[in-house]
Amino acid sequence: MTELKNGWIKQISVPEPSLQNNTADAERVIAALKPALESENVSIDLGLLRRLPGLIRTSGPDLYAILFRRNHHWALVGLVPDADPAPPAGVAIDLGTSRVVLRLVNLLSGEPLAECSFDNPQVAVGPDILTRIHHADRPEGRAHLRDLIVNGLNQEITRLCRGCGLEPAGLFLAAVSGNTAMTHLFMGLDPKWIIREPYIPVINRPDPVKAADLGLALNPLARVFIFPNIGSYFGGDLIAGILFSGLHLREETTLLVDVGTNAEVVLGNRNWLIACAGAAGPALEGGVTKMGMMAGPGVIDRVTLDPDAKQFKIGTIDNLPPVGICGSGLIDLAACLFLSGMLDIRGKLVPERCDGRIRETEGLAQFVVVPEKDSGTGRDLTISQADIDSLVRSKAAMYTILETISQSVGTALHDLSAFFVAGTFGSFINPRSAISIGMLPDLPLATYRSLGNSSLGGATRLLTDADCLNEIDRIRDSITYLELNVNQDFMNRFSAAKFLPHTNRDLFPSVDREGP
Amino acid sequence: MTELKNGWIKQISVPEPSLQNNTADAERVIAALKPALESENVSIDLGLLRRLPGLIRTSGPDLYAILFRRNHHWALVGLVPDADPAPPAGVAIDLGTSRVVLRLVNLLSGEPLAECSFDNPQVAVGPDILTRIHHADRPEGRAHLRDLIVNGLNQEITRLCRGCGLEPAGLFLAAVSGNTAMTHLFMGLDPKWIIREPYIPVINRPDPVKAADLGLALNPLARVFIFPNIGSYFGGDLIAGILFSGLHLREETTLLVDVGTNAEVVLGNRNWLIACAGAAGPALEGGVTKMGMMAGPGVIDRVTLDPDAKQFKIGTIDNLPPVGICGSGLIDLAACLFLSGMLDIRGKLVPERCDGRIRETEGLAQFVVVPEKDSGTGRDLTISQADIDSLVRSKAAMYTILETISQSVGTALHDLSAFFVAGTFGSFINPRSAISIGMLPDLPLATYRSLGNSSLGGATRLLTDADCLNEIDRIRDSITYLELNVNQDFMNRFSAAKFLPHTNRDLFPSVDREGP
Repeated sequence: MTELKNGWIKQISVPEPSLQNNTADAERVIAALKPALESENVSIDLGLLRRLPGLIRTSGPDLYAILFRRNHHWALVGLVPDADPAPPAGVAIDLGTSRVVLRLVNLLSGEPLAECSFDNPQVAVGPDILTRIHHADRPEGRAHLRDLIVNGLNQEITRLCRGCGLEPAGLFLAAVSGNTAMTHLFMGLDPKWIIREPYIPVINRPDPVKAADLGLALNPLARVFIFPNIGSYFGGDLIAGILFSGLHLREETTLLVDVGTNAEVVLGNRNWLIACAGAAGPALEGGVTKMGMMAGPGVIDRVTLDPDAKQFKIGTIDNLPPVGICGSGLIDLAACLFLSGMLDIRGKLVPERCDGRIRETEGLAQFVVVPEKDSGTGRDLTISQADIDSLVRSKAAMYTILETISQSVGTALHDLSAFFVAGTFGSFINPRSAISIGMLPDLPLATYRSLGNSSLGGATRLLTDADCLNEIDRIRDSITYLELNVNQDFMNRFSAAKFLPHTNRDLFPSVDREGP
Repeated sequence: MTELKNGWIKQISVPEPSLQNNTADAERVIAALKPALESENVSIDLGLLRRLPGLIRTSGPDLYAILFRRNHHWALVGLVPDADPAPPAGVAIDLGTSRVVLRLVNLLSGEPLAECSFDNPQVAVGPDILTRIHHADRPEGRAHLRDLIVNGLNQEITRLCRGCGLEPAGLFLAAVSGNTAMTHLFMGLDPKWIIREPYIPVINRPDPVKAADLGLALNPLARVFIFPNIGSYFGGDLIAGILFSGLHLREETTLLVDVGTNAEVVLGNRNWLIACAGAAGPALEGGVTKMGMMAGPGVIDRVTLDPDAKQFKIGTIDNLPPVGICGSGLIDLAACLFLSGMLDIRGKLVPERCDGRIRETEGLAQFVVVPEKDSGTGRDLTISQADIDSLVRSKAAMYTILETISQSVGTALHDLSAFFVAGTFGSFINPRSAISIGMLPDLPLATYRSLGNSSLGGATRLLTDADCLNEIDRIRDSITYLELNVNQDFMNRFSAAKFLPHTNRDLFPSVDREGP
């Protein structure tokens, strides 16, 4: 019997019965598993038991057993002849509020097989989670939201499988990471108390659920692992992110930040973890500034300053004529405006330094980023002072959260050996720009590490390594959650951080700027 | 928190959440259970999680939690406000091949609430288990047999509940005991290999199954415990019988016998158990002799001899005119015939001593038990020499099995301090008559103890005492199964036991008879 590296699959050989060993089929399978599991604590679902006698008598004695564990109890999820051409597979699911990402994984090799992403179909009910939670107040609404996401997943999973010659019935494990509200909606749990003081989820640590019980079109007995949460505002997606970052295994103290509508921050090392979440402001997601939008074709995602010409160099996705700007573009732009003196340290536009790019529309000052002749919309692309104020509040909130969490444990931000930035924010943001406006601390650029989709990465890790289950429990149990009470101290810090880059310039020695 | 005596129910008080204790609903319930279970290893089904937030917020903090255990893992099956007028209940099911018996039990008090029995609807496919197993060869046949028994159970359970003001959804536990083939058919498992060498069940020790997965009309999350078997020919009904008898707890060695188509025998004490099963012959069940039948109105169940008048006194069920004879009546009759000298020690009718009650029909000697004028059928009720021969073979098989099992461990039958006789056989048989023909050993009559329906009794015990789960495991693990190889030694014993009461009269000192 070979033990495969991922731990969820064991290669077994089931002995034939005889008058000397007339143990039942199920018990012979369990006995064959015993050496690999160091446990006889294995249960076999009725659905598999019903197929078992035929299966072990026709498939030959050598089988892959796919298992899942809950504490010390194993569930046998599937048995596959080891001669089968299609490998047993699993699916990692990043259940985002706006966007859902799937990755098929070969459970034998641990290799990814295919990947896709799609808009969360619940957006039809409401783009924001709050609207959905209210919609879920009635059981019909809850069922509706569940149907939307489950049907969406089933459609995409089926398509993904077809693309690589797999049957959905050949998917035996799923790992789902999402925020607390999303995982509740996915499981059909009442999310009502998540948003009402004292902010109580239905469950922190869901048991593995059978795919059939969730309505997922995998093997009906497939076990679906849903990452645990710490509370209403600290979800399984971040636990998955910590798992993926390896933060919890390092000797030195490092930090992980995941920015969406909320900024979620984890600081720690292999001995302790502290976490908090706070509203970082929606400016970074797009949707607030008139020209702000999610990343997409023609969206400005890079802005650089030609210091001599005082000209911006604009980069758009797919190099199309610009139609709007996304979070990373906005941060770049703000940095350029500030470094060239067009913004003052309070974040206010300085008209006399703006080379005639200021326009007054409906009584509001607008800065023309792209004149109509160069834009993809046929109109000027502008941002207003109000848009910039919103960004400044966001960056101040972010820095204040970072400062608060690090000071709460007496760690200086400057001592961090690594600063992990998760998500699309982490992938696209230019740390240099974020430092210039004082959004991120002034660390050597090499300290910043983009993790990509760490939620999906953590879910994938679980599918490829059974030991992750213990790691996840350890992460969950070792996190101290810091409640960000907005007290006077926090507000003082926040006020100081509302300057560009900060009232205390000593914190940002690398930011070199002339001007008012 | 009060601990209720049966162990499956705990009275808990779930603390309200607060900003200081913002643990999720499920985890607060589990924490409230922890002191009673000495474990946090509790899982809550999705179906219950979906109702949990509303349930704990509207019911008041005091609840009955109904649980079931599998090894060290608890499943929370239901939560009921302790102010509810209807008690949480369970159902014990004796899944007989011919007859099914149900008993509703109040889980709080342990008291039985109602009981009923009905013919196993699978009889429509075949009265004997072999026909049904062949019918189950095709998946449709298997589904058909399962539907028959499950629908039959659902109908009767619903009727029973209605009779005592309960809802089927208020049934949270079920305990099912039956022979190995019946439990396989009930679970929808392929019974094919049970009857083919080397006689392999699909499973020996089924996991608790959710009622919904079996199609049972209880609470969908109710856990159904199915008694484990030792093998194809030693079923959960006998494990339940041992549990009910207490055989496995006694210091002194005692014996349990359950007679149906097979005679199943267990011998042992708290240190060891040995068991065997053998064909005892169908003579005892009715259906072989022309007048033989199952117990029912007008059936002769008692025969006594008036030694002076050489007349039989006949007792019938409900005191109706006699229409046939059942197993206990047949044994009485044979004893009377033998003791009055109408049967010789070889079990042959002695015409000259039969007072003209012998009649020749179609060349066969018939003994008139009831002349037509007294019978309820308008015809003579007779038994033939062939019928008596069949009974003699059965009684010889029974005695030989008892002798073989006791000699295998060096225990003399005469040393037994108690001899438990289970089932309807045990309830109705007159041990004096059985001793007279040498079917049972010549022990003081007080040694014989009738257990009634010990299969149902064991199932009921499990519902009223969670510790039985360990007892059942201990019983299962401590039984040595003795394969009754029909070898020369066995055949020699069998030949000796075919005499009335036995070739060795010293074994039956109490049988006092004159005659040839």
